[in-house]
Amino acid sequence: MDSLMPQFVSLKKAQGLLALESRAKKDAALGAVSAAINAAREEILAANAGDTEKARCGGMKEALVDRLFLNDRRIDAIIDGIETVIRLDDPVGKIRAGWRHPQGMLIEQCAVPLGVAAIIYESRPNVTADAFSLAYKAGCAILLRGSSAALGSNRALVKAIKAGLAKAEGIPGAVELAASGSRGEIDEILGARGWIDVVLPRGGKELIRRVVENARVPVIETGEGNCHIYVEPLFDMAKAVEIIANAKLQKPGACNAVETVLVHKDALKPFMPLLAKCLAGRAELRCDPASKAAIGEAPSSLVLSDACESDWETEFLDYILAVKTVGSREEAVAHINKYGTRHSEAILTNDYAGAEEFMRCVDAACVYVNASTRFTDGGEFGFGAELGISTQKFHARGPMGLEALTSIKYRIHGTGQIRE
Amino acid sequence: MDSLMPQFVSLKKAQGLLALESRAKKDAALGAVSAAINAAREEILAANAGDTEKARCGGMKEALVDRLFLNDRRIDAIIDGIETVIRLDDPVGKIRAGWRHPQGMLIEQCAVPLGVAAIIYESRPNVTADAFSLAYKAGCAILLRGSSAALGSNRALVKAIKAGLAKAEGIPGAVELAASGSRGEIDEILGARGWIDVVLPRGGKELIRRVVENARVPVIETGEGNCHIYVEPLFDMAKAVEIIANAKLQKPGACNAVETVLVHKDALKPFMPLLAKCLAGRAELRCDPASKAAIGEAPSSLVLSDACESDWETEFLDYILAVKTVGSREEAVAHINKYGTRHSEAILTNDYAGAEEFMRCVDAACVYVNASTRFTDGGEFGFGAELGISTQKFHARGPMGLEALTSIKYRIHGTGQIRE
Repeated sequence: MDSLMPQFVSLKKAQGLLALESRAKKDAALGAVSAAINAAREEILAANAGDTEKARCGGMKEALVDRLFLNDRRIDAIIDGIETVIRLDDPVGKIRAGWRHPQGMLIEQCAVPLGVAAIIYESRPNVTADAFSLAYKAGCAILLRGSSAALGSNRALVKAIKAGLAKAEGIPGAVELAASGSRGEIDEILGARGWIDVVLPRGGKELIRRVVENARVPVIETGEGNCHIYVEPLFDMAKAVEIIANAKLQKPGACNAVETVLVHKDALKPFMPLLAKCLAGRAELRCDPASKAAIGEAPSSLVLSDACESDWETEFLDYILAVKTVGSREEAVAHINKYGTRHSEAILTNDYAGAEEFMRCVDAACVYVNASTRFTDGGEFGFGAELGISTQKFHARGPMGLEALTSIKYRIHGTGQIRE
Repeated sequence: MDSLMPQFVSLKKAQGLLALESRAKKDAALGAVSAAINAAREEILAANAGDTEKARCGGMKEALVDRLFLNDRRIDAIIDGIETVIRLDDPVGKIRAGWRHPQGMLIEQCAVPLGVAAIIYESRPNVTADAFSLAYKAGCAILLRGSSAALGSNRALVKAIKAGLAKAEGIPGAVELAASGSRGEIDEILGARGWIDVVLPRGGKELIRRVVENARVPVIETGEGNCHIYVEPLFDMAKAVEIIANAKLQKPGACNAVETVLVHKDALKPFMPLLAKCLAGRAELRCDPASKAAIGEAPSSLVLSDACESDWETEFLDYILAVKTVGSREEAVAHINKYGTRHSEAILTNDYAGAEEFMRCVDAACVYVNASTRFTDGGEFGFGAELGISTQKFHARGPMGLEALTSIKYRIHGTGQIRE
């Protein structure tokens, strides 16, 4: 019986203490963690080499092994991430609003830590350090439940984190690794009412579905991004192709990559040949009949096929782009609101009223006018790091940084008032 | 088979339209609703008379019948509530924050409606109008699931609301009554992922527990208030008694009423005789030995008994007050953080550092210095009306007004940017 209860108890106690730490103390502790990870570099890399070898032997695909893999450069990036979080403002204690009650009390709405967070994630070990450092800065304790494939790497990282915290008189109990690797562990986290204040699933569709369906503690859904870019005639077509190529090709596995391009019928003729030329040899196009016809003579290196209904629903996470013709802006918005996952949606247009209408009517965390959907990211939004990208509306939406880990407390300063 | 699915579909569609309504249109619609309720006064009172008669025949306690009961004055209050909501600012479309990305795009964080809300509540018919009007103003559609005892009253109210909305070219589909009265109805609401964006249970402990444990849609827990007032020596003892009497006696059934008073040992001697004198004949005192001894000669009309462990855990919702002696401020804080329900907690003191420490260390939605806990209320906080008082930290905490029914959308205005 590998119960997590001792860790829940320790995390809750540690969080009570961490909630009262000053920014200076938290930053000093994070600085010591960054130094400790640097000092433990060899140990972390050795553990990671063990994980990757085991994964390869077990037949893991090379793309997935790469997500698991650490080298000196990637450890530098982990350390940079912590240093960035140190520079961020402390979200705790901020007075978000304040006003006087008619009887004279001052009512303040003050930010406080959310409590104990749990993150359930897949193989990337950098998430271990990112999630810990954001949580610590926000005064939250965190339970880390990485994939069993990364267990050695995560153990080495958490050991270094705890050593750093201990050295700087921080609170080492504020981070715990769920390390049995069993599936029952996830169920225990999902049922830990009163111990865990939020669970963040970060990974594939299947993981997120499982967490959302089974959790009895609050969950923030992340990730799934079936993103669209809608092209109107009143726009520079070369620029449109450049933005779409960026949104499709720069990192096709990212949730903010574009999956379907919607083209206004009046833009088909100038747009499609340019798009076909740009993506030839770089991505497959799955077109509806009208957009396919508008390509004209296709470049020989272009992989071109017919789109079907299921393509509109698919987050390809691959070098595949679906293309659909729409007769109007309303039709584009309706398609997006039907098939989209409320993540990131863009319009390319020089029509002022159209841009405003699109922004208003599309229901998504991030709506872009004339820019690539790839910008949906905590770092790009200036949050320093991210816990993930929320695709729900409840509590947090879009890229989640420190604020997603806070709640509020009302502080009421009276002078003896009673209610009439 | 009384499936709510047709109502879910209609609410979702209506919410899409309501999200785009201007403040002027929403206010005009709410004005028409207020007029329609006024016009339907006789019909509503007749339906309510039927409900209350049935309840009395069924043996409902008179205190509960009173919660169900409507008269002209109470209908006036319902109408006033709607008029107050009309005067509130529209929360939708507010730009909460905005900044420039280094590549020049403007990123705006804009408030949007949360979506479709469902409220599961007990007998008070005024909740029907309050919840509807807040939801409508916030651009949210709402499913109302009142108690079966109030079904006639709620039917008459919702009929008037829909008539008002239709008259002012509002969106009548934005409010639906779940009217089968079956328990299965609640389960259907709790499982309606993708249709219901938040469920608000408002009522007794048992209802809230059931909703929280079974919901697969987001829930905001409300209500349970085991509230404390902690008395330090450095305070005017007569004032302390006045504040405690207000917090206990003004409305003992309210969640913000005080249940346990914690008294610093050095305050026992001046404080307890005054408290006993004030509450004699008005409330029962359940004292620990030290506070009981400090009363000295008890007034003959005082109901006095010995407190036991279970008293510290109980939300009496009655004319009963538990009293416990503490040796220090730390002990008071520890008692509150152990037994409290994170609702409303108060310290009475003239010690500056002590007040600050109490505010920082007590984990509750509302922490008071030198005022009655009875002020925890949407109306008192200036929110116009309230959906309930959240006792959780996730999404909303404390009294919930319009803001609790909003989420955000990021609007990104670019000029052709791609991610480097």
